[in-house]
Amino acid sequence: MQQIELVAAFCRAWSGPDIERVLAMLSDDILYHNIPLPPLHGKDAVSAYLRAAGPFDECRWDVLHIAATGDHVLTERIDRMVVSGQEIILPVMGAFRVRDYHICEWRDYFDLASYRSQWPVRAGEPGDES
Amino acid sequence: MQQIELVAAFCRAWSGPDIERVLAMLSDDILYHNIPLPPLHGKDAVSAYLRAAGPFDECRWDVLHIAATGDHVLTERIDRMVVSGQEIILPVMGAFRVRDYHICEWRDYFDLASYRSQWPVRAGEPGDES
Repeated sequence: MQQIELVAAFCRAWSGPDIERVLAMLSDDILYHNIPLPPLHGKDAVSAYLRAAGPFDECRWDVLHIAATGDHVLTERIDRMVVSGQEIILPVMGAFRVRDYHICEWRDYFDLASYRSQWPVRAGEPGDES
Repeated sequence: MQQIELVAAFCRAWSGPDIERVLAMLSDDILYHNIPLPPLHGKDAVSAYLRAAGPFDECRWDVLHIAATGDHVLTERIDRMVVSGQEIILPVMGAFRVRDYHICEWRDYFDLASYRSQWPVRAGEPGDES
């Protein structure tokens, strides 16, 4: 199915990550919601957010399962990132909606504390006792 | 698809909830993993866990999207519970595996802090200042 292929390509674009390719696959009116955090509306807001994320030394999304119903594509994944030399492994499920060959809705479900607890402590940030 | 019908029926069994019906739909070697918490193996362990959960005055799982790939069924849901008169609303994605008309794998992805923060404080539990 075309929807599955598009979302699979989106997941592959996270390797690197290739943020330009990621952004090119989103609609202008993208609704992006990391479920534990406030939603973001529109490509400008999502672009600013994703460009500020990380920076990731490496990134790879392993797709365990992917299935579609109409325009909606559901994924189960292991998202792997390396930040300041430290590996972060995050189990995620994500729901996507595809319209006109672009992703117009993207919701990721994960445990925020599991994610944050794996981040390296950086100078001047909470947890830094230097 | 038969797998989708079975998981949809499982989600409906959570209305009430009808725990006996929920348990009857699980295989003896069920692997149940609330992703932020340790996994549970086998129907005895899952039965003990689910019977101790709540008690829920009411429960309903609203299935937003459900899709299958082979034996695997992916869901996006809003799980609604009422505990001690207080409503809890939890966005969840769940991945299921079906074998021989039973669910043999069940993984739910959600933000644990979002769940716990909605629970009412009960006498003698953390947060109780009586």
